[in-house]
Amino acid sequence: MRSDNSPEPIDAEIVPEVVVQRLPLYVRALSQFASAGVEVISSEQLGAHLQMTPAQIRKDLSYFGRFGKQGRGYDVDNLAERLRSILGLDSQWNAAVIGIGRLGRAVVAYPGFEPEGFRIVATFDADERLVGHEVGSMRVQSLNELASTVHERNIKIGIVTVPASHAQEVINLLVRVGIKAILNYAPIAPVVPPDVRVRGVDPVLSLQSMTFYLKT
Amino acid sequence: MRSDNSPEPIDAEIVPEVVVQRLPLYVRALSQFASAGVEVISSEQLGAHLQMTPAQIRKDLSYFGRFGKQGRGYDVDNLAERLRSILGLDSQWNAAVIGIGRLGRAVVAYPGFEPEGFRIVATFDADERLVGHEVGSMRVQSLNELASTVHERNIKIGIVTVPASHAQEVINLLVRVGIKAILNYAPIAPVVPPDVRVRGVDPVLSLQSMTFYLKT
Repeated sequence: MRSDNSPEPIDAEIVPEVVVQRLPLYVRALSQFASAGVEVISSEQLGAHLQMTPAQIRKDLSYFGRFGKQGRGYDVDNLAERLRSILGLDSQWNAAVIGIGRLGRAVVAYPGFEPEGFRIVATFDADERLVGHEVGSMRVQSLNELASTVHERNIKIGIVTVPASHAQEVINLLVRVGIKAILNYAPIAPVVPPDVRVRGVDPVLSLQSMTFYLKT
Repeated sequence: MRSDNSPEPIDAEIVPEVVVQRLPLYVRALSQFASAGVEVISSEQLGAHLQMTPAQIRKDLSYFGRFGKQGRGYDVDNLAERLRSILGLDSQWNAAVIGIGRLGRAVVAYPGFEPEGFRIVATFDADERLVGHEVGSMRVQSLNELASTVHERNIKIGIVTVPASHAQEVINLLVRVGIKAILNYAPIAPVVPPDVRVRGVDPVLSLQSMTFYLKT
């Protein structure tokens, strides 16, 4: 018989992608509660913190097994650890930045990636005049070296910081060398095969979805 | 009788926030099609471009009136213009950046805001040693001047680039001076009153929602 806490196999196909996208928010909230010394938390408390309904939280978590104790709530440390493992956050992930303009340099210098297990291990630019320059103690490489470097350095994530006009082309190239996860800073909605994930980082889209509420 | 094209009144309360958050994606896609010379587009074509179902697109747009012609599709220019107007993107919006560290400076220098009608018109920092310095041809101001500057410069948007440990405090301050739209770069899930919108710009959360699919 399966104990309440044993990991159950997860079929990635049946978990809606929106649920997967919310899990990192849960992990972050749980870490905040853990730092504050909270040991057990209810879906109501977590919901209040994340501005979600408790029912939504219980439903999201139900895809991954049975976590809570009836009427007692969730063990904060245990749930955080399980979710981190489900998301693969107990591993280290290597990333490459493509596009070493002002935005690319800011991304390379961004201090938030490394503590969370994301390491930028290579930088690339299409402009041969930039190739060979040092950025973040890495040598900017030519895109000709992309395939071999991705393989040698075990790079699983591509970070795209080229202008919009080149973004789809660079994303096609990343897909061709086997990258399945792309963080896209260019303001386009790229087209990728179904087994490739793209997340856009786009402050303008975020602003544009708030002005609706400011108009009146 | 109402003509097919006349704007209908929109009750912001009944439009789900997820729908509002998708509208900027439609605007951007429509602009891309318009630049490519496309005049009429079907929900199927728009859906293929955005990796959404045509039914979802028709349902989203139905909150804002009747746009398409039965069996003909949408007039690209007209739909883009209407959505821009619905979102308030035909106006100019003034913003203030709070937190002038490395991230704040990168945000001030980001070239993507101005062409989309978002103007950073003031910068603030809690550190009095930074106050008076020039960033992006603006003088960094003390937080003591926040309330008066927000009022005088008609600032409607606060952009928060302070460290996580200070973010909730700064967001409380923005709420207190009447800001209703906050772009938050700090890695926290802030608590705000129901009439205030916060959007997080957080590349780490985006990365964390992709590693789930990379694990195997």
